[in-house]
Amino acid sequence: MIQASTSGADRAVSARLAEFAVKLHWEDIPAAVRHEAKRSLLNFFATSLGGCREDAVTTAWRVMQPLAGPSCATVIGHSLRTDMLGAAWLNAMSANVFDFDDTHERTIIHPTAPVAAALLALAQNRPVAGRDFLLALVLGIESQCRIGNAISPGHYRRGWHITSTCGVFGSAMAAGTLLGLDVQQQVWALGNASVQAGGLVETLGTMAKSISVGNAARNGLLSAMLAEAGLAGPAEPLEGARGFLRVTGENPDFDEVVGELGMRWEAGKNAYKPYPCGVVLNPVIEACLALRRDSDFTLEEVESVTLTGHPLLRERTDRPGIVTGRQAQVSAQHSVAVALAYGHARLQEFTDAVVADPALQSFGRKLRFVDDSSYAVESARVDVVVKGGRCLSYTVQSARGCAANPLSDADLEQKLFDLAAYGRADVDCDALVREIWRLDEAVDVAPLMVLASGRAA
Amino acid sequence: MIQASTSGADRAVSARLAEFAVKLHWEDIPAAVRHEAKRSLLNFFATSLGGCREDAVTTAWRVMQPLAGPSCATVIGHSLRTDMLGAAWLNAMSANVFDFDDTHERTIIHPTAPVAAALLALAQNRPVAGRDFLLALVLGIESQCRIGNAISPGHYRRGWHITSTCGVFGSAMAAGTLLGLDVQQQVWALGNASVQAGGLVETLGTMAKSISVGNAARNGLLSAMLAEAGLAGPAEPLEGARGFLRVTGENPDFDEVVGELGMRWEAGKNAYKPYPCGVVLNPVIEACLALRRDSDFTLEEVESVTLTGHPLLRERTDRPGIVTGRQAQVSAQHSVAVALAYGHARLQEFTDAVVADPALQSFGRKLRFVDDSSYAVESARVDVVVKGGRCLSYTVQSARGCAANPLSDADLEQKLFDLAAYGRADVDCDALVREIWRLDEAVDVAPLMVLASGRAA
Repeated sequence: MIQASTSGADRAVSARLAEFAVKLHWEDIPAAVRHEAKRSLLNFFATSLGGCREDAVTTAWRVMQPLAGPSCATVIGHSLRTDMLGAAWLNAMSANVFDFDDTHERTIIHPTAPVAAALLALAQNRPVAGRDFLLALVLGIESQCRIGNAISPGHYRRGWHITSTCGVFGSAMAAGTLLGLDVQQQVWALGNASVQAGGLVETLGTMAKSISVGNAARNGLLSAMLAEAGLAGPAEPLEGARGFLRVTGENPDFDEVVGELGMRWEAGKNAYKPYPCGVVLNPVIEACLALRRDSDFTLEEVESVTLTGHPLLRERTDRPGIVTGRQAQVSAQHSVAVALAYGHARLQEFTDAVVADPALQSFGRKLRFVDDSSYAVESARVDVVVKGGRCLSYTVQSARGCAANPLSDADLEQKLFDLAAYGRADVDCDALVREIWRLDEAVDVAPLMVLASGRAA
Repeated sequence: MIQASTSGADRAVSARLAEFAVKLHWEDIPAAVRHEAKRSLLNFFATSLGGCREDAVTTAWRVMQPLAGPSCATVIGHSLRTDMLGAAWLNAMSANVFDFDDTHERTIIHPTAPVAAALLALAQNRPVAGRDFLLALVLGIESQCRIGNAISPGHYRRGWHITSTCGVFGSAMAAGTLLGLDVQQQVWALGNASVQAGGLVETLGTMAKSISVGNAARNGLLSAMLAEAGLAGPAEPLEGARGFLRVTGENPDFDEVVGELGMRWEAGKNAYKPYPCGVVLNPVIEACLALRRDSDFTLEEVESVTLTGHPLLRERTDRPGIVTGRQAQVSAQHSVAVALAYGHARLQEFTDAVVADPALQSFGRKLRFVDDSSYAVESARVDVVVKGGRCLSYTVQSARGCAANPLSDADLEQKLFDLAAYGRADVDCDALVREIWRLDEAVDVAPLMVLASGRAA
């Protein structure tokens, strides 16, 4: 029996979340949220295939390989397998390494990487029907975003890498659902996750960030497995006096975790990036690509570019003189330069080598910002002055990828094709996409990971 | 090259700690600290042998066994081996599961479990001389206690399980030392550890606590191995604006980490418990055992017991009506009862079964506390009134195990013998103890773990 506090309806947060997980059926989930789960999964495979050969991932795997257990699980985009926990670890890293994965806009959590990586590894080691998998995916995303809401924005602002710290709970709840845990065991899974929550904003832009994202997947899965085996924890791992929410948040709002469960769906509010950049750059890049498409000028001919937008645009992205591809992803100077010069803003445009291009570097001094709080963050105006005095202007109201203008299903498919090529992942993209869209009808999830394995050279 | 902040001598904390680790030689360590390292290790083996069959440990191992990699490392007290990271994980759990391991009194960190568990696993996979091992052990203990000092007491008070959160840095620095990392790599190891720091006071008294203690050992070792392979992190993982010290502490004192390095030794301030209880109970138990030894009465004949001591004694240990052995370890009611009834206060007296004894349970109402701030926490007076009106009294000034009255080397040896018996660990205790005392002369550490392996049934 769950030992719930008697201090009122605001407590028993862990137990109520666990109970929701145990009782939820596929039929209870609105159709739009079910479809969003497939879109989230498609985007997950896209960014995993794109990131699967990035340094952080391959370095981590090189270290872990001699210590790995039975090779039962796919490392996405590779032909070699590794053990279940290791695969969860590496696949979450791949999915998130470029921060090109999905975004829960209110918390800035990238929710799918920890959850899907754990579930896919588990589903390769026992038969799992497509609907059961998607149900668990929805629950994991829902749980971690709700936990994140309860402590936002203070948690991230203090320095917690919220995708890592909250992701481990999502992974635990999702894996616990596939394992068929009861309510007490799900509370234990939350407790086992609570002692493994970690990750710091200080490490963003470095390889170290990927460790905690990988851990969120691996350790959430492990938390559920330990709970299944009887490894018990406290009754109130989330809401207790020294539980996760109070220790890592200021005045956590418990109702954000357990209010309107089954009615309000955070898992339906997922967004996907069209460009591998900070989301505030979306409207700027979209405008620059349009200007470049519609007009005829070279980067050298540009005399000045003025960005008008919400003050956050300047605060987060005014970064001239950067030196790495990772820094370029949050640099307006670099993003504008590549969009105007190349007519693209893909991962290929955000490598260390491209950043080193002197023409792009020298462009930085031509850029200026105008703060205008009347702009929403998904809006921006770009004014370009070309040699000879020609003035070009383009305004984006709702950038592609934001909640008001989401990427279409076809956009997400194209993102997967593009990223698989970028990651040199030799997979049958068409078959993989087909399998994802029909996953709710699939008898078993395992074929999905066969399709996501790179063919042996 | 290390990118250190230019903002003054209070910064570059990570780099200066890393530099200290890289430059330290065995000869630089005072003889008393060197000897304390061997005492810490002896106590580590004692509590590991005692804990190696406890539920949390065996449950964790049962879950991990099917996923384990090559069996290269000893699980202390067992004949089966597991992989290097798994052994570090399990052995740290065993050492700390009863909180009977060592205590750095100022921070209440149990410093040796995460560090020694990591080092021993590593030393079974490459030749390591005894002095190199002990040097790394000292460095690991020193690093984590200094990091803990910088954020104490606020860090623990907020709810962080400081042994877990700081232990991962100790393990990383120690393993990094054995791996021969350079300064930049040691900073990366600290960064890789910083994203893996976790563990909550909320889970104390439950099995979930052991997960984060195990992780401190495993993930610290992994952090160093990843750094060796080039997995890079930020320049200031400890002191950065969103680094570990600022995110998990209030106004961290950087000088506690890097002040007087090589002159002030936290690793020399380690203490060891004579009883498996909260340290504030030490004088009470010692007095009760003396009263029982010197006088002739049964528990039934006791009419009342009065404990006079520092207010913390009552605040931390006034716990009647407990039901588990783990709760009993911080219950004055239970501790006094078993000491008077059985004349012992060993792990055997703190099991769920003993707690259930009705005679001990009913004793609780005979106990009362008198707060007296003139007592130090290592002091207490116990007054017993026996049927017929006889009054017995005993006062302890400096309880055994406190800094002013440390356990002798012989005490520690006896603790190992007793705990090996308790844990049903079939090892040659005499040989193990001999090997620990001469470890600074040993050409290789590996034989130590052969001796600590349980003989196959």
